[in-house]
Amino acid sequence: MMGQKIINKLCIIGVGLIGGSLARALKKADAVDEVVGAGRDVTHLEKAKALGVIDTFETDITLAVKGCDMVVVAVPLGAMQFIFEKISAVITDDMVITDVGSAKGSVVHAAQSAFKTLPKTFVPGHPIAGTEKSGVEASFSELYENRRIIITPLETSSGNAVSKVKSMWQACGADVVETSIEHHDEVLAATSHLPHMLAFSLVDTLAKMDSKNEIFDFAAGGFRDFTRIASSDPDMWRDICLANGDALVAMIKKFSDDLQLLSKAIENNDSAYLEKTFSRAKKARDEFCEDKK
Amino acid sequence: MMGQKIINKLCIIGVGLIGGSLARALKKADAVDEVVGAGRDVTHLEKAKALGVIDTFETDITLAVKGCDMVVVAVPLGAMQFIFEKISAVITDDMVITDVGSAKGSVVHAAQSAFKTLPKTFVPGHPIAGTEKSGVEASFSELYENRRIIITPLETSSGNAVSKVKSMWQACGADVVETSIEHHDEVLAATSHLPHMLAFSLVDTLAKMDSKNEIFDFAAGGFRDFTRIASSDPDMWRDICLANGDALVAMIKKFSDDLQLLSKAIENNDSAYLEKTFSRAKKARDEFCEDKK
Repeated sequence: MMGQKIINKLCIIGVGLIGGSLARALKKADAVDEVVGAGRDVTHLEKAKALGVIDTFETDITLAVKGCDMVVVAVPLGAMQFIFEKISAVITDDMVITDVGSAKGSVVHAAQSAFKTLPKTFVPGHPIAGTEKSGVEASFSELYENRRIIITPLETSSGNAVSKVKSMWQACGADVVETSIEHHDEVLAATSHLPHMLAFSLVDTLAKMDSKNEIFDFAAGGFRDFTRIASSDPDMWRDICLANGDALVAMIKKFSDDLQLLSKAIENNDSAYLEKTFSRAKKARDEFCEDKK
Repeated sequence: MMGQKIINKLCIIGVGLIGGSLARALKKADAVDEVVGAGRDVTHLEKAKALGVIDTFETDITLAVKGCDMVVVAVPLGAMQFIFEKISAVITDDMVITDVGSAKGSVVHAAQSAFKTLPKTFVPGHPIAGTEKSGVEASFSELYENRRIIITPLETSSGNAVSKVKSMWQACGADVVETSIEHHDEVLAATSHLPHMLAFSLVDTLAKMDSKNEIFDFAAGGFRDFTRIASSDPDMWRDICLANGDALVAMIKKFSDDLQLLSKAIENNDSAYLEKTFSRAKKARDEFCEDKK
């Protein structure tokens, strides 16, 4: 991988955990010449520069993307359209644009509104990686190693642009897969968005109880693991809920229906149902972990 | 702690993760002279002996507890009454009896049915410790270090018996707290039994979906942590559901009501509600982890 410059000038808009880790990984792989950071907060950008994550920075998006052959939009979903509007004023045919949003339908919708005609160089993407932490301080170059990156190329996306986005992520050690926007949003609702809702909702339910203090006091290691994702960034998750609402509400419904059946089985002392459900779940979960080894 | 023999002859009935780790910890602290393992499966008991977890074993419970000054019943909740009935035939005033069941009301109910008159030496207990693994192979002497042990002494429990159970767990490095049976069962329903139901139910819901393979394929690290407890022993959890059904069904209801409100907020694009809920949850979870440091 070393020495293969995939990108001359990279602009990361939103230098947080995801954007910062991408910049670090590309620098480590020697796959990029220059990294420009863009954002609103100068103090934050200065910190990113001091950490060596970016080489220079700009608070004006139109200046930041100038001369860049790759622009990665790594802002919360709610800010996508605003950023795309800024870029649309200065976009060139050589400027590949991708994003890292956790819901793809809403990103494409935002791009359509901002660009009017979708640029051939626009390729939506989503790295399946992250931690419950946020901010550039939490970024690290290994975040994408052996992780999945889902890209959802559009009919308008050029082959060259798709290749360049793929190469960028592969240089970070990631495994890139392609799927449709609808499928991405459904699968992510199931596998990421729903679990986050359950963790946030569980912790909030417990925190509102009278015996709150004892509840948290008596919680064991399992609880810590189970609720880790409830420490994720609230603003980011508000945006994900708004962006992927339909698929997420459908998944909550599906989950709730099954949970009601389980609750009924407990009420009815239905040993066989409980045993079957728990055994199926254990088997699926053990197989999942086996595959990920 | 070294050299202070708290127990002369200990009988562990059910030499699995919990019972095995207790025996290992007490041996390591030099707090016990002799450990007898009891169970149905000779191969399993031979393995425990080969691992040095127990010194001798018996498959006949009445023989196993003979001459023991401490008997720890570490079997699934559904087997408690059977074990208590066996012990009741040979119990003496010097034989302290405790258990490790995750629901305490049902254990006391089983003891009452088996012993008719509750022995003064009976002190129910519950170590808030464990992993998703089971079996003596998974046992280790540090499992109880700095962990909470809840004991729920009965009106009939003698001060001496309570002290001895406390000393036993303290010798394992644990922190012993006392509470009532009802309170224990409510708090555990919230903090352990409900999260396990959510994890089992989530994995099972996803495993039944058409896109099952992709769902597990696209799952990230957060999913692995969130679902770890779904790899727990199905039989044990069936028993817990049956033993603590009332408290658990009430907690599932409380959780489901809050989840419905969250789902409605997503449907209605209610940013403020989402932001408030996620922020409260993040704060509670971050504080919980801060306390546990």
